[in-house]
Amino acid sequence: MFLPLARNEGYSKAMTQPSFPTAASKDALERGDLLAPRFDANGLIAAICQHAETGEVLMLGWMNAEALARTLEIREAVYFSRSRNELWHKGETSGQIQKLVELRVDCDQDAVLLKVLPQGDGGACHVGFRSCFYRVERDGKLEERP
Amino acid sequence: MFLPLARNEGYSKAMTQPSFPTAASKDALERGDLLAPRFDANGLIAAICQHAETGEVLMLGWMNAEALARTLEIREAVYFSRSRNELWHKGETSGQIQKLVELRVDCDQDAVLLKVLPQGDGGACHVGFRSCFYRVERDGKLEERP
Repeated sequence: MFLPLARNEGYSKAMTQPSFPTAASKDALERGDLLAPRFDANGLIAAICQHAETGEVLMLGWMNAEALARTLEIREAVYFSRSRNELWHKGETSGQIQKLVELRVDCDQDAVLLKVLPQGDGGACHVGFRSCFYRVERDGKLEERP
Repeated sequence: MFLPLARNEGYSKAMTQPSFPTAASKDALERGDLLAPRFDANGLIAAICQHAETGEVLMLGWMNAEALARTLEIREAVYFSRSRNELWHKGETSGQIQKLVELRVDCDQDAVLLKVLPQGDGGACHVGFRSCFYRVERDGKLEERP
């Protein structure tokens, strides 16, 4: 029986999700050399994206196992879009590809930190700012301060 | 009738949750001066914590409405501990209080960025490192590189 694959920006939804191992102990989780990311109930892990040279925090994205595996494979940030419910190779449309310089994981492996070099116009935010965090709270109000 | 309040690190669980407004439009959400954080289905928002001087990303925490309101009130980071299911005034026990220098919100207001000055020994991670992101991926394995 032939099942046509759905087209999805080059990825197939029918593709088997890559799986990551589970750490055998708290010590292995926190001090081990095994990448054993802990995805949440929705199968996602938070991914903080930081400019590798300036240190500016650019955005917070989400990754499922496939997005994380693809990111490590192609060394460019691939997120999972929660609004579109599909893989999102950042910059594929906008040109704002994020070249991966370094990927870090936190102590309990439920968050990753990407240090990237943004390509194209150097931006990361769909609103047009370099970083998504272009507003600062001041006296309870927000001020744009890119 | 007298109902004794539960003791909870100085906060009362019986306290009314502060509420934040909802943005009236996409433009208000993205460009407005109204702090209108979008909490997830569990009532939480991701909070990236960055050292205000070095730019180092220290940790990723979570906040409910009360934690965010308290953070803005006392100008020290207050998170919501998902494991203990209660407010967590960072540093209350360890001394690693995080003085808030600046709080930013992202374009669609579902993440906040805290720029802080860590007090005490200057650390943020329970494992003993300055930052929780002390491990780097290299060829699929993790290396400690604080």
